[in-house]
Amino acid sequence: MAVNLPTIQAEQLLPIEGIRLATASAGVKANGQTDLVLIEIAQGSRVAAVYTQNAFCAAPVTIAKHHQQQTTPRYCLINSGNANAGTGQQGDQAAIQCCASLAQQVNDKTESILPFSTGVIGEQLPIEKIKAALSGLVSDLNEDNWFDAAHGIMTTDTLAKAVSRQVMLDGKQVTITGMAKGSGMIRPDMATMLAYIATDANVSQSVLESMLKRATDQSFNRITVDGDTSTNDACVLIATAQAENDEITTLDSASAQTLYQTIAEISQQLAHAIIRDGEGATKFVEVTVEQGQNTAECRQVAYTIAHSPLVKTALFASDPNWGRILAAVGRSGLQDFDLSKVTIYLDNVCIIKAGQPASDYTEAQGQAVMDNSEITIKILLERGQAKDTVWTCDFSYDYVKINAEYRS
Amino acid sequence: MAVNLPTIQAEQLLPIEGIRLATASAGVKANGQTDLVLIEIAQGSRVAAVYTQNAFCAAPVTIAKHHQQQTTPRYCLINSGNANAGTGQQGDQAAIQCCASLAQQVNDKTESILPFSTGVIGEQLPIEKIKAALSGLVSDLNEDNWFDAAHGIMTTDTLAKAVSRQVMLDGKQVTITGMAKGSGMIRPDMATMLAYIATDANVSQSVLESMLKRATDQSFNRITVDGDTSTNDACVLIATAQAENDEITTLDSASAQTLYQTIAEISQQLAHAIIRDGEGATKFVEVTVEQGQNTAECRQVAYTIAHSPLVKTALFASDPNWGRILAAVGRSGLQDFDLSKVTIYLDNVCIIKAGQPASDYTEAQGQAVMDNSEITIKILLERGQAKDTVWTCDFSYDYVKINAEYRS
Repeated sequence: MAVNLPTIQAEQLLPIEGIRLATASAGVKANGQTDLVLIEIAQGSRVAAVYTQNAFCAAPVTIAKHHQQQTTPRYCLINSGNANAGTGQQGDQAAIQCCASLAQQVNDKTESILPFSTGVIGEQLPIEKIKAALSGLVSDLNEDNWFDAAHGIMTTDTLAKAVSRQVMLDGKQVTITGMAKGSGMIRPDMATMLAYIATDANVSQSVLESMLKRATDQSFNRITVDGDTSTNDACVLIATAQAENDEITTLDSASAQTLYQTIAEISQQLAHAIIRDGEGATKFVEVTVEQGQNTAECRQVAYTIAHSPLVKTALFASDPNWGRILAAVGRSGLQDFDLSKVTIYLDNVCIIKAGQPASDYTEAQGQAVMDNSEITIKILLERGQAKDTVWTCDFSYDYVKINAEYRS
Repeated sequence: MAVNLPTIQAEQLLPIEGIRLATASAGVKANGQTDLVLIEIAQGSRVAAVYTQNAFCAAPVTIAKHHQQQTTPRYCLINSGNANAGTGQQGDQAAIQCCASLAQQVNDKTESILPFSTGVIGEQLPIEKIKAALSGLVSDLNEDNWFDAAHGIMTTDTLAKAVSRQVMLDGKQVTITGMAKGSGMIRPDMATMLAYIATDANVSQSVLESMLKRATDQSFNRITVDGDTSTNDACVLIATAQAENDEITTLDSASAQTLYQTIAEISQQLAHAIIRDGEGATKFVEVTVEQGQNTAECRQVAYTIAHSPLVKTALFASDPNWGRILAAVGRSGLQDFDLSKVTIYLDNVCIIKAGQPASDYTEAQGQAVMDNSEITIKILLERGQAKDTVWTCDFSYDYVKINAEYRS
């Protein structure tokens, strides 16, 4: 079902020196699939993370944030199949107990471990099943397990999402590998989305945090499947410093730019992969709004289009029903909005010119665009220089089916 | 498909002295169904109207607003099957020409006529077909045509929506009859909601406007099917003053309160009818948020829940997946929001108490509520005295089907 999303091969994912991974089937998922992933981070690494902005954040998010304040993380312990969200104080205790149990196995502090969960909301975490799988997990840790790990974090995803890149910094080869999961409950500010990106580059903590914030803002925070912000999202960026490049201590250096660009591209590729694998998706849609007074208002118009059920069902039907796009722009709530200046394109086809139906538009032109599996909707506001882009998918029978049947 | 919405009978709709109506099949709708409705308003009546807030409002909305500023309306000319929206200057001219042509027939000013259109966006209005039907319309005007008119304004509605009430004011019997169309208030493509309410009561212009604004605010402005604001919405309230009650010149009198309450109840009943007949709806859902700091924030939380595709698909599946409600509350964006104070009910079943899963909640209790066709979701915020309510429906396969196939 996924839109132009290739199946990844194990050999495409490059190991990162200083990172070892392991997976297990602990029985959290009823179907026996892999549901537990452990990432070990070498001593001396730096770790940055961003989390969901949903006020009802899940227990593991609360605990991970707290642990990160205490010490530099050495492990990410991730389960799929259960979100440990809406589980109250019992849920907090469950997340802590999993961390404590792992800490005992690896002879480290409980606070060195960041817990992550993704899956059904509102059911207590089966901690005994998880604890029972921990010793096996630890003994299976291996640099080459990115492929299995990318599969182990999946929930309603139909395909695993992961990518590797290499760049040269100061004559040293630096490798970056990232993986992500997510398919529904996807909306900016992190969705039901988990992403882990690791590099062997040597980067200071503050620069690493800046890079993560910027890259996230241009990728995972610019996508939406259904407008529903998850309680569990997290994105982690790890730098193990084992590539022996000179430490990057400012964003301005050439090395910093090279590394940042690569991290940003990986983030965007993973974010796009989430949309391509959006629940029930048959189209991958870029919504670009240009000539706004600022990026915030461009984003506001873009999200109004990207969240409109009517636009999304028209995209599913490959129907060039541009009236729905026009109506969404009209209700997006901009101040002092002059619709007589608005121009709208479907790919290269102008459908609205200066607020009027484009005189040379034909339904056949619109239909030709809508028949594609990748479509760009472009809006020109003619009220400034700013621009922003979000990515979304269409709204299909299968979206309803997947979400109506998720727990049954 | 409509949820507990009875079929209206012609004899349930009471005529209003001073209001005559007529319907015709002009051929705007391809299927030959009634698509033209004329409402004649007697001299000496007062007329109030509210219109869509979509910046891309349709041509008839622009013209109706302009005409209303010039003179007291004497006619509402309504076509279904074509929204005359996104049609540019040609659309404005089409609306004016229909009014001018009717003005000639009835020997009145063009500005005395308010045009309304509802149907597909982006196609030019077939004005010749409409003009050809006008003389027949005028000769068919009759006080008893509310039933036919309620059917003539329908688009994707599966049932007509109309209601009559009578009250005593100053010893005089006063009648109020209203009709509405819409299968989602908020739906650009069908240019959704139109409502016409008429009474023979004697009410001043300013009080009539206040009553309409208040009644609309508590009814048509509190419903959502899919979050998409129409380009064509309008609600008209007419008072013909023929019941000979003393003129109501203030909202504070007992007569004003009696009349207002009845108009408010009719508005709410029609608004609920729109939700009950929501596209693909299988559930009628009330979302009430209490103990907020102000009604605006209560509404913000309520709409976040009412617009969540995940909540709506869970409702469709009769799945007590309350985690999705909780996640929607969490992302609703309230300032200084303390989730440890939030309590959530499904009907009378408490699912979240003070931010924690209610200790005595069982899945069977939740399932029993979700199996009903009418469900109340109640949120207590424990941060103030304010309260607000919105009404919505679920999100089904048929919603996607209806909207994917609308133009094909």
